[in-house]
Amino acid sequence: MPNPTAAMLVIGDEILSGRTRDANMHHLAGRLTEAGIDLKEVRIVSDDHDQIVAALNDLRGTWETIFTSGGIGPTHDDITADAVGAAFGATVDVREDARALLAAHYARTGSELNAARLRMARIPEGATLIDNPVSVAPGFTLGNVHVMAGVPSVFQAMVASVIPTLTGGAPLLSTSTRIDRGEGDIAGPLGALATEYADLSIGSYPFQKDGRFGANIVIRGQDRARLDAATARLATLFG
Amino acid sequence: MPNPTAAMLVIGDEILSGRTRDANMHHLAGRLTEAGIDLKEVRIVSDDHDQIVAALNDLRGTWETIFTSGGIGPTHDDITADAVGAAFGATVDVREDARALLAAHYARTGSELNAARLRMARIPEGATLIDNPVSVAPGFTLGNVHVMAGVPSVFQAMVASVIPTLTGGAPLLSTSTRIDRGEGDIAGPLGALATEYADLSIGSYPFQKDGRFGANIVIRGQDRARLDAATARLATLFG
Repeated sequence: MPNPTAAMLVIGDEILSGRTRDANMHHLAGRLTEAGIDLKEVRIVSDDHDQIVAALNDLRGTWETIFTSGGIGPTHDDITADAVGAAFGATVDVREDARALLAAHYARTGSELNAARLRMARIPEGATLIDNPVSVAPGFTLGNVHVMAGVPSVFQAMVASVIPTLTGGAPLLSTSTRIDRGEGDIAGPLGALATEYADLSIGSYPFQKDGRFGANIVIRGQDRARLDAATARLATLFG
Repeated sequence: MPNPTAAMLVIGDEILSGRTRDANMHHLAGRLTEAGIDLKEVRIVSDDHDQIVAALNDLRGTWETIFTSGGIGPTHDDITADAVGAAFGATVDVREDARALLAAHYARTGSELNAARLRMARIPEGATLIDNPVSVAPGFTLGNVHVMAGVPSVFQAMVASVIPTLTGGAPLLSTSTRIDRGEGDIAGPLGALATEYADLSIGSYPFQKDGRFGANIVIRGQDRARLDAATARLATLFG
C-alpha cells in the first residue's frame, strides 16, 4: 500500500530573498520520513495573500496532509491565518479559547495583551488549535492543513504535536553507499539494478570533492530484506 | 517599474526525504536579489515525470524566468531533459553540439563516451546550451526556462553564465535592524511605519535566542534615501 502523502507551504519572503536559509523544511522532511509519510512537494511563496491562497488550494486538493510555516505572528506582515481562512471560505476572528491562552500567558509574564498580540488569537472558524509549548500563541488545523509558526523552535514543537495524530505508513528504510566513481561509469549497471529492484527507489546523488566526482547511491524501500539484497548487489557491482 | 520576476523548480527526491539540505535555492536567491530580479516562488518536486511537467508549465506561465536544478546527469533517475521537452512539446534527442562537447572532454580525460554519458547530450529541440566549466555536460535554455545541474559547484557555475544574459531591475537594497523585544511589543508602531512607507517592504523576522524573543526588521526597497529614512525612523521608534 502506498504511504500517505504530504506537502509543505513555506510563507517566506526572507527565504526567497536569500536572507535566510530554510531550516523548517529540512526538519519536517526528516520527521515525515521517520513516520512513513511521503513528502511529495514543497512550495515557497512570498507574503502575498493571493499567492498563499492559490498555492494552498492547489496543494490541499492534491496531497493528503499539508503543513504551512510562517506568518502567524503579531506583525503587519503576518497574513497566513487570513489567507487560510480565505482558501477554505471560513471567517477569521479572535477566538475565545485562543484569547484565553494568550491572556493567561501575558498575565503570567507581566506583558500586555495588546491589539497586536491579540491578532495571534485570530483563528479560522472550525479550526482546532495546535499547542505551542514554546511561546503559547497557537497554530491551528483546518481540514487537512496544519498551520504552524516559522520560528524554528516553535515550528519543531508544533510538528512534534501534530505528527503523532497522523496515520503513518510503513517507515521508509534506506541505505546510502558512497561510490568514488563518476556517474557516467556506473549508470549502466545501476540502471539495470533499478529495473531489477523496481519495488525499491534507487537514487544517484552525484558530488564533487577535491576535483573528483563520485555519487551517493541511496536505496529506499519498506522491506528490509529486499533493501539489504539490493545494497549487497550494489557493493558487488562497484566494490 | 516592478522588477522582473523569477521562479525555481528543484527536482529533488533527496531534499524531500530530508537526506540533504538545499544549497542551490539559497545560492540562486542571493544572486537574483543582487541582479534586481525578484524570486517569487520555489517548488520542490520529486523525480516524477508528470509532476515535473505540471509544475514547470504552471511556473513558466506565471513568472518571467524559470530556473530548474537537478536531474540532468547520466543515471536512470535523471529525467529532467525529457520532462522539459514534454512540457514544451519538443522532441528530445542526442544533439551534435552537445555530443561533440562530451566527446572532446572524454577523449581528453581518457574516459569512454558510453551510452550513459551520451544521455547528457540529449537536449530538447530548439534549446541553446548553457556552458558547464566544471564538468562539461551542458545545461540548456528553452524558452524562458534555464535547466541546470543539481551538483552545487556546477549549478553555481551555470547561474554565473545565465544571470548576465537576463535583464535585471534596480538592485534591491535592504537594511536589517535587530530589536531585542518581542514582536508583540513592536507590532503596533511597526505596522504604522509600514503604512507610512508603503513604497518599501518591511518584514519582521522573529527569533528566539537563550529563551528571549526578538526580531530582525528587514526593510527593502530600491531608493536609498527612502530606505535610510525609514531605517532611521525605526531606530527612533525602538532605539
